[in-house]
Amino acid sequence: MPQSGLDPAIAAQLRRDAHGLFPAVAQQWDTGEVLMVGWMDDEALHRTLTTGRVTYFSRSRQEYWTKGETSGHRQWVHSVALDCDGDTVLVRVDQEGPACHTGTRSCFDETRALAAVVVPVDERPAVAS
Amino acid sequence: MPQSGLDPAIAAQLRRDAHGLFPAVAQQWDTGEVLMVGWMDDEALHRTLTTGRVTYFSRSRQEYWTKGETSGHRQWVHSVALDCDGDTVLVRVDQEGPACHTGTRSCFDETRALAAVVVPVDERPAVAS
Repeated sequence: MPQSGLDPAIAAQLRRDAHGLFPAVAQQWDTGEVLMVGWMDDEALHRTLTTGRVTYFSRSRQEYWTKGETSGHRQWVHSVALDCDGDTVLVRVDQEGPACHTGTRSCFDETRALAAVVVPVDERPAVAS
Repeated sequence: MPQSGLDPAIAAQLRRDAHGLFPAVAQQWDTGEVLMVGWMDDEALHRTLTTGRVTYFSRSRQEYWTKGETSGHRQWVHSVALDCDGDTVLVRVDQEGPACHTGTRSCFDETRALAAVVVPVDERPAVAS
């Protein structure tokens, strides 16, 4: 793993994949909208925690990528949390403009919904005891 | 990749990692709370789309895992969306009880927040033109 400036106490909690990466979920802090999922390594998380803006690691380009650098659609950090087993981070952000490179606010645009079976509340079986 | 019942039109849009997996973000559909991130393969997504409940693939146990099977903390599907490049899904759910195996509602409990620099809105520089 490359040297990173990340606090060793945080680094010790992380569980990374074989490439040293973990998913980072970006959520608009006030509306709760899930905007996108990117990837981070220790250094990307370090930059995200210390610069006020979200930095990811691009798997396709194999480089750091600070959101909005070229598009101007910056993500300002509101808060960052690890999950219970340290293999994902949730970054609450204030997103300027669209988060998605396709121009939609979220990468999970409703036009990308898949048909799914939804069980109405009154048809849910009781939990077996 | 193992045979799966997933609609080939959906399977064709997916981009999986070297293990055939992709992250799945579970969000409480009405409050917007991000509950957890799990992993799916084609068959887990197929089961999620067709049974009304969320099924993940456990990387540690290498088996399918329908959320709530043992805990009773079931996740009922509300809607499912692929992201723009097909490498993540967002599952909006109705979560019964805590989503986290530690007993907290979300795996990104506020006690797991990391210290982060937050730039106030009026101190954000203009986007370079």
